[in-house]
Amino acid sequence: MNPTARADGRALADLRPISFDVGFTHWAEGSVLARFGATHVLCNVTIENSLPSWLKNRTPPQGWLTAEYAMLPRSTLTRSPREQRWPKGRTQEIGRLVGRSLRAALDLSLLGERTLTVDCDVLQADGGTRTAAITGGWLAVALALRPLIEAGTLPAAVLIRQIAAVSVGLVGGAALLDLDYSEDVAAEVDLNVVMTAAGEFVEVQGTAEGAPFGRDQFDTLLDRAAAGIRDLCALQTRALGGDAGVVMRSLMG
Amino acid sequence: MNPTARADGRALADLRPISFDVGFTHWAEGSVLARFGATHVLCNVTIENSLPSWLKNRTPPQGWLTAEYAMLPRSTLTRSPREQRWPKGRTQEIGRLVGRSLRAALDLSLLGERTLTVDCDVLQADGGTRTAAITGGWLAVALALRPLIEAGTLPAAVLIRQIAAVSVGLVGGAALLDLDYSEDVAAEVDLNVVMTAAGEFVEVQGTAEGAPFGRDQFDTLLDRAAAGIRDLCALQTRALGGDAGVVMRSLMG
Amino acid sequence: MNPTARADGRALADLRPISFDVGFTHWAEGSVLARFGATHVLCNVTIENSLPSWLKNRTPPQGWLTAEYAMLPRSTLTRSPREQRWPKGRTQEIGRLVGRSLRAALDLSLLGERTLTVDCDVLQADGGTRTAAITGGWLAVALALRPLIEAGTLPAAVLIRQIAAVSVGLVGGAALLDLDYSEDVAAEVDLNVVMTAAGEFVEVQGTAEGAPFGRDQFDTLLDRAAAGIRDLCALQTRALGGDAGVVMRSLMG
Amino acid sequence: MNPTARADGRALADLRPISFDVGFTHWAEGSVLARFGATHVLCNVTIENSLPSWLKNRTPPQGWLTAEYAMLPRSTLTRSPREQRWPKGRTQEIGRLVGRSLRAALDLSLLGERTLTVDCDVLQADGGTRTAAITGGWLAVALALRPLIEAGTLPAAVLIRQIAAVSVGLVGGAALLDLDYSEDVAAEVDLNVVMTAAGEFVEVQGTAEGAPFGRDQFDTLLDRAAAGIRDLCALQTRALGGDAGVVMRSLMG
Amino acid sequence: MNPTARADGRALADLRPISFDVGFTHWAEGSVLARFGATHVLCNVTIENSLPSWLKNRTPPQGWLTAEYAMLPRSTLTRSPREQRWPKGRTQEIGRLVGRSLRAALDLSLLGERTLTVDCDVLQADGGTRTAAITGGWLAVALALRPLIEAGTLPAAVLIRQIAAVSVGLVGGAALLDLDYSEDVAAEVDLNVVMTAAGEFVEVQGTAEGAPFGRDQFDTLLDRAAAGIRDLCALQTRALGGDAGVVMRSLMG
Amino acid sequence: MNPTARADGRALADLRPISFDVGFTHWAEGSVLARFGATHVLCNVTIENSLPSWLKNRTPPQGWLTAEYAMLPRSTLTRSPREQRWPKGRTQEIGRLVGRSLRAALDLSLLGERTLTVDCDVLQADGGTRTAAITGGWLAVALALRPLIEAGTLPAAVLIRQIAAVSVGLVGGAALLDLDYSEDVAAEVDLNVVMTAAGEFVEVQGTAEGAPFGRDQFDTLLDRAAAGIRDLCALQTRALGGDAGVVMRSLMG
Repeated sequence: MNPTARADGRALADLRPISFDVGFTHWAEGSVLARFGATHVLCNVTIENSLPSWLKNRTPPQGWLTAEYAMLPRSTLTRSPREQRWPKGRTQEIGRLVGRSLRAALDLSLLGERTLTVDCDVLQADGGTRTAAITGGWLAVALALRPLIEAGTLPAAVLIRQIAAVSVGLVGGAALLDLDYSEDVAAEVDLNVVMTAAGEFVEVQGTAEGAPFGRDQFDTLLDRAAAGIRDLCALQTRALGGDAGVVMRSLMG
Repeated sequence: MNPTARADGRALADLRPISFDVGFTHWAEGSVLARFGATHVLCNVTIENSLPSWLKNRTPPQGWLTAEYAMLPRSTLTRSPREQRWPKGRTQEIGRLVGRSLRAALDLSLLGERTLTVDCDVLQADGGTRTAAITGGWLAVALALRPLIEAGTLPAAVLIRQIAAVSVGLVGGAALLDLDYSEDVAAEVDLNVVMTAAGEFVEVQGTAEGAPFGRDQFDTLLDRAAAGIRDLCALQTRALGGDAGVVMRSLMG
Repeated sequence: MNPTARADGRALADLRPISFDVGFTHWAEGSVLARFGATHVLCNVTIENSLPSWLKNRTPPQGWLTAEYAMLPRSTLTRSPREQRWPKGRTQEIGRLVGRSLRAALDLSLLGERTLTVDCDVLQADGGTRTAAITGGWLAVALALRPLIEAGTLPAAVLIRQIAAVSVGLVGGAALLDLDYSEDVAAEVDLNVVMTAAGEFVEVQGTAEGAPFGRDQFDTLLDRAAAGIRDLCALQTRALGGDAGVVMRSLMG
Repeated sequence: MNPTARADGRALADLRPISFDVGFTHWAEGSVLARFGATHVLCNVTIENSLPSWLKNRTPPQGWLTAEYAMLPRSTLTRSPREQRWPKGRTQEIGRLVGRSLRAALDLSLLGERTLTVDCDVLQADGGTRTAAITGGWLAVALALRPLIEAGTLPAAVLIRQIAAVSVGLVGGAALLDLDYSEDVAAEVDLNVVMTAAGEFVEVQGTAEGAPFGRDQFDTLLDRAAAGIRDLCALQTRALGGDAGVVMRSLMG
Repeated sequence: MNPTARADGRALADLRPISFDVGFTHWAEGSVLARFGATHVLCNVTIENSLPSWLKNRTPPQGWLTAEYAMLPRSTLTRSPREQRWPKGRTQEIGRLVGRSLRAALDLSLLGERTLTVDCDVLQADGGTRTAAITGGWLAVALALRPLIEAGTLPAAVLIRQIAAVSVGLVGGAALLDLDYSEDVAAEVDLNVVMTAAGEFVEVQGTAEGAPFGRDQFDTLLDRAAAGIRDLCALQTRALGGDAGVVMRSLMG
Repeated sequence: MNPTARADGRALADLRPISFDVGFTHWAEGSVLARFGATHVLCNVTIENSLPSWLKNRTPPQGWLTAEYAMLPRSTLTRSPREQRWPKGRTQEIGRLVGRSLRAALDLSLLGERTLTVDCDVLQADGGTRTAAITGGWLAVALALRPLIEAGTLPAAVLIRQIAAVSVGLVGGAALLDLDYSEDVAAEVDLNVVMTAAGEFVEVQGTAEGAPFGRDQFDTLLDRAAAGIRDLCALQTRALGGDAGVVMRSLMG
């Protein structure tokens, strides 16, 4: 592979075309259809005035955020059966990653007796579904909290960090940003990075798919991811729109 | 309730705004996002060259069509947990209805050793999800078969009927077409009708939610449904577009 | 097929030999072994002083009736495995139909904090198990309520309708009443009708097994079903016996 | 408790009224409704020309017998929910006991590639359901094999032993035969014995419900059981009727 | 087989080398790794201040003991898959036997609102796992209760009996004590006996694996088991050590 | 917390006392009880001459390695119920991590039609169970392959890398190696690192438990982990013993 050319014409450090379709469904408190190229993930946030049993009756009260991830049967090139008996290991693992990552966006002690459930359903998959879920999920959480913050029901400080995620990988020795499925299966190293808009790490998951990788390669991949995260955070902010002030001020403040 | 006025301004015999977003996802052989007002059902058709075990090795060979129905957790006003252990009775019942109805559209003996799987996933629910699933599902089946018919792999006669479905109901004594959720919960009688473009019945399911209903009321509801089906079939045909010729000729022929 | 002759010698509009073995088991509050020819369904009614959680603490209180349907493994010509993981779609669908139909027999608001559970277990199957379950189930419900009504614990008006069910079908173009299994598999149209003794519809479920059916055929089938229901209601009344007065008066009143 | 008087008037060594309703259902190869007083167990035997996978392709071929046990929800004084997720420990344990016991009746090496499945479904329970299942199950197995033996398809020697089972227990220090439910819950020691008509043990399961029991008490209980088994075997033989010759000769031979 | 010689050199009436590794894990209230030859079972006892729901709010309060049994996947000669969906019948059956047997060791009415859970996990299996589980389980229960008795929280009388278990079997006509796996699969009769140190029966489970067995053989097996139990109880007592006084006095008292 | 002192007296860069009990069970092809302080994980390797269905019939043939992870109910401070319905997300996630990590140790194309299953069962947990599972699992794999390599059945080159794993974490701002449970719950950052003896990365999983972490902190943690891995690899080599030559030569080659 020519390390400076990608099949879809992108440069090594380019994101795919990114879009956030805000309000894609209307019952959810926050709803975003996040598109990273041909990867489309519907992120719906539900706010309920209840807590899981193990969190009840704490002093002071603490809120919670949980996430679930699933793929529609024909989101993939060939159909996958529905996971009727129990979710597969990969499915649960991604749901747990999304939940952990998005909890880092919140000061749960300011949330009151509320649980946010972030449902990330993949409508169409082409690599990077988990990073699209986290990036779109953060936006949906911000949208769900905004009216509560604007109404004074919740303090703006409940949203303490802006979070995005992106994949990077070594393909033919080159460090690629935001891999699509064909790049993902060819990658020697696969790295998913969740970071804040301030450039700090929330989660780093790196896996050698073939040979192990050295510290230098790791450093190069982390740099590439950090640049991608900055771009994604800018796109999230734009999607929050002109009246995003109250939300973003709390983050900038 | 004033029997000639509906909350959303429709007349008794009006459908909600109907649209079919053809090709909503791109891996599936046929994909349609069917919208009946605020009810949005994604219908994806997969064609596989295999058969369920009980159909294998028949002479002559016979194809099959099966359907599955599910709702996203936040397709509803309040969130419903995912059906992780097993699908609920209602879920399976609707999947079976969709499959039965769409099998009536095909001459399975001309399908060869192929199984069509119709996945109907409700992205947003506002009443009438099963009828949207059948109506959108028929369109997705026609789209999935079209290239095979055009290539001569399958005879045009494999698609023997055009099928659509609609709900009707008695609300305050008035016969309403295509009920939304608020009308559905108020209905004294709930009737789902699956018909062909030629005006014959494929499936009739009528339920008295409160008091039983008489033969006259039943007749009125059936008439109203038949008119709605005619309109839906016209909209399906239009969605098949200018190059729908080969598919529709097989139906008109 | 000669449309006026049936394999077992019945005329088109004949029911199979019907019997209701009242008190077949003795722990249940109401117990009936309903036999429609070779179809034998044991209907046991349990009355419990509790409510499903979603019905608790309503004002005014409302009772509930639910039904479950199952087949013994060797009720059928060849053995079917027990449904150990979860009930099959067909099983749940019939249970839901039986429950819906029998709730129409009751004024739930007069039932107090009670749940009636109607267990319909098929001991031997030869077609029409769901209609035998509903017809026998109504009788078992009446038997279960009778002592409570006679003791004045419940008002007689709690039992507001007499309900029965029967199947009809088009076989070789002829409209047959109460199909056995061999007729059922040959039927072009299969219609299950649940009606009141007063001749009104509670549930209508019609399915084209082969070609769709026209309105005329539908009308003929409905007429045939209505006549069968009248006969079944007369047999239910007889099975309630000489001291059925209190129950039937509430229905006749 | 007066150790010589029982609530239903039986003497200590009396069985309850026993009956075997042969041919209770007609699809099964062998069908018996076994009644031990108010305990009614339907025993249906299915013969299939197949083997479990772990027995296939053995030289010489060996047949198999397996049993399943279940209770209808309202076979008991109060209703028990259906075991939908998986069978309870007790349910599986009894099914395994019935299977083990009835395999002792057969020379599996003469059965060819056949599996006998014995379904024991409790329609009404009043103590001793497992012993009724074994005793009725043996009869149903003999009935299922008889036509194959008579037709010469199987040698008479395939049925090598006559098997019956009975419970005994210590209640108030007295050794009671064939306990009903009220006696069972009061028993200090509960003993289930499976024996051959020739007076040998197939299975012995004794449990101290309260204080442990001594060797003398154990011996008394075993004697009482042996006498009961003799009576049950005589009743089985009578139920096989006048044309039972071929079956019983193989046992008497 | 020479009935006086065994493959591992033991005499017919010899136990395998027995050891109890007390405190094998340190979180459990009582922990014993019981070794019967190559059969190694880890018995961990947990004491919780709660009761199963069906035991709550009784007057006077009553405690409970329950047991669970499981095998590690490679405790056996060939690997067995984990029981992920539900425990197999054999697994549940043994857990129920262990629980029943160990409840006979306690006066539950003196236990207060406490539940003892005895987890018996087979690390390595070579026959006789259930008897090792009961024998080691009793020791773990005694160890778990000792500090509560010594502290005066529970009366010494809560431990009312010393319990052990052993298997015996007929192999080649000879009565063998404590069968290993190779003897177990060769046995014509398999008998598991649970007894008290005082020589009374708690549970007797005898199964004819091939031909049924006579009363004389049964008596011989029971004698052999009783001798083995005496030895096992002596080994349990020794394992309780020099400071076992308070526990054993309550049993000897 | 004083960043240079740990509760158990270790220095920041100290491992806990490590031991590998080789041959802890004897049926498994490779068996190691790995102890990292009070964390005890039993690693059993099974070799089977079969492949998962999706790997069958490949040219050239490729072997496979899979891993399962589980905790005994009382391996933890308080008892956790057995995962009877399905394994929890965390359980599956760790099993997948162990399998991925250990596959990096093998050249699967040299393994023939063999599957290695690595069962990692936690007998006692005190933090770092997944890293103990990987480190002990590698040793068990080497032990399982050794006789096949020595016999010439497999080439020495099948074992291509030596793998170990360790956890590091930031506690009170200090970078700690090999955290026990009390340190784990206090950690601001939790990082699990799987590396080769040659110092390259196989897997890196870092999670901010509280505030996100910067690149400098990440670098410090990675350095600390690398040092720990070197020590663990030396301990693995020693555990392979004097006759480990053939295995280690293949690695040192």
